[in-house]
Amino acid sequence: MTHLWKLDLIRRKMADLQLDSFLLSDLHVIRWLSGFSGSSARVLLSQDRAVLFTDFRYREQVAEEVDSMECSIIDGGFLNAFAESGVPGPERLGIEKDVVSVGEFERLRARFDRLAIVPVSGFFDEFRMIKDAAELGALRQAARITEQTLEKIVPMISPEVTELDIAAEISYWHRRFGAERDSFEPIVASGPRSAMPHARPQPEKIREGSLIVIDMGCVCNGYASDQTRTFALGKIPDEAAKIYSIVRDAQQLGLDSIRCGMAAKELDAIVRNAIASHGYGEAFGHSLGHGVGVEVHELPRVSSASEDYLHPTTVFTVEPGIYLPGRFGVRIEDTVVLHESGPEPLQRYTKELVQL
Amino acid sequence: MTHLWKLDLIRRKMADLQLDSFLLSDLHVIRWLSGFSGSSARVLLSQDRAVLFTDFRYREQVAEEVDSMECSIIDGGFLNAFAESGVPGPERLGIEKDVVSVGEFERLRARFDRLAIVPVSGFFDEFRMIKDAAELGALRQAARITEQTLEKIVPMISPEVTELDIAAEISYWHRRFGAERDSFEPIVASGPRSAMPHARPQPEKIREGSLIVIDMGCVCNGYASDQTRTFALGKIPDEAAKIYSIVRDAQQLGLDSIRCGMAAKELDAIVRNAIASHGYGEAFGHSLGHGVGVEVHELPRVSSASEDYLHPTTVFTVEPGIYLPGRFGVRIEDTVVLHESGPEPLQRYTKELVQL
Repeated sequence: MTHLWKLDLIRRKMADLQLDSFLLSDLHVIRWLSGFSGSSARVLLSQDRAVLFTDFRYREQVAEEVDSMECSIIDGGFLNAFAESGVPGPERLGIEKDVVSVGEFERLRARFDRLAIVPVSGFFDEFRMIKDAAELGALRQAARITEQTLEKIVPMISPEVTELDIAAEISYWHRRFGAERDSFEPIVASGPRSAMPHARPQPEKIREGSLIVIDMGCVCNGYASDQTRTFALGKIPDEAAKIYSIVRDAQQLGLDSIRCGMAAKELDAIVRNAIASHGYGEAFGHSLGHGVGVEVHELPRVSSASEDYLHPTTVFTVEPGIYLPGRFGVRIEDTVVLHESGPEPLQRYTKELVQL
Repeated sequence: MTHLWKLDLIRRKMADLQLDSFLLSDLHVIRWLSGFSGSSARVLLSQDRAVLFTDFRYREQVAEEVDSMECSIIDGGFLNAFAESGVPGPERLGIEKDVVSVGEFERLRARFDRLAIVPVSGFFDEFRMIKDAAELGALRQAARITEQTLEKIVPMISPEVTELDIAAEISYWHRRFGAERDSFEPIVASGPRSAMPHARPQPEKIREGSLIVIDMGCVCNGYASDQTRTFALGKIPDEAAKIYSIVRDAQQLGLDSIRCGMAAKELDAIVRNAIASHGYGEAFGHSLGHGVGVEVHELPRVSSASEDYLHPTTVFTVEPGIYLPGRFGVRIEDTVVLHESGPEPLQRYTKELVQL
């Protein structure tokens, strides 16, 4: 994949900020920009050069994956390689303020003492938020693999299996269907643990009469999926069924309310008010959603405090939940691509309550 | 698990560095110190208080996992919670120089403008290097799960399966045998890819007559395992068999040469010289090993440039390899616990060449 439009945008912003060069350290940004998937890399950009630095372990991989940049195999540390490349300079070098550590910053300053090193916050976030056709293709493929996986594992849910068993099956089938890996550790939370939004799967069997929240995603060609469904094993209490309906209707209201150009916090408010109108406002303690891309949490934020807008072509989740501590919880989540013509949900799996 | 001896050591070092308080941000360090396994946390320490901060998602988990600290559920950002806790101060606050980003550092400085914020490098590394009985228990259990997994997957290797299939099975069986997760993405590298020390598993079938490097590890109760074996599928070239013998003998020489108190670089040199004496010195391009604990790479470094010593009770890998680009590679790795009485290898799986 070449990513030249991304380089153009970045160089325009560098010029606006009067940066002669920029040092990228965030591996997600490097993957987004170059396609490189190794675990150690830096990229130096100037107006006329782009060099990716990695070490000998990735010599063959970088040649296969990267076609839009020069590639340099470092022999020793990154700092000497930067200096030898001749890219930084002559005056202002941008760095990622929320990624570069205090220690790296000091070492950079010592090595490049003639340069002004300028920490910049969220330099790439706005560019990463808008997806191109290749990115949408990867996001759709990741979502498809997660749906295939969900279809495979739902029939396995029974009083004979543990949450950890189901989590292991999720990771396994993600890979077997072609994913690189999970985009986050699968959440399989049954009984009272379904009321913990980020519960860790336990080696405990799933009990009859309980709700099971399954939140899962994978990475395919560098891009993430994210989907949640809540299931019932056997007959569940009436209040659990009632809460399921409220969350399902609120989630559908959310999907139906999405419009290009709306403030993300408006969308959050619509769904939050719907849940509050049933008296469960306090029990929905997290934001409505988040952007998805090379990271499973990126812009836009879809929360009450968000200052982001829902542009075409952003990709984000809609995932309301109601959690009653010590009793049970429900969450339903789809990821949508927002086009000018409206939202495209990446999931088709039913949202009616499935009783297993 | 209580970890009070760790707190005592840290407080002594804080006093030595005249730090009134210390802010921990590294989640591996937080797990090592408190047992907390959530994905968002900070810890503030002073001579008489230890407070772990996390958000509402982990309310129940933190109560289950942490018994040696106060726990505080933040309502908003960490910075306000730090201020409200009353822990920082009155003068010097230490932070982890190689973990805290430039942006976080600036925000801390703005919020606590009366304090001197002191970035410290590797504050916890020396403490983490020496393992206690509970840690050794977890490390042994992680190693056992990885051996069970290896025994399960080796019979699956055939010309009918792909590297990715085997990688998926490794992750699956790690979990089924009780691991939390892989400690790193499994490496399954066959044919010419066996010459890439960190190859990513490919959706390609394993061919007859090739070597397969399998490097794998899991996390159990927060502690990692790490093990590599190289297998032959069918008849392999004579030079491949010769190289296998050289690596196996060099690895055994390494294990046999370990003594308490030796410099880690001495051990690296012994094994490196043995491989060089056969003319393959250039083909062994990485260090001999690394420490293993809550991270799969920590101190001691076992390399030619290391300044670390091999103390009791350190835990580290011994993993020489020979890589002939475009042809094949061999790596054999065990993790050992170094006791006063000598090394305890955590793996028992044969190191004779297994032809499948």
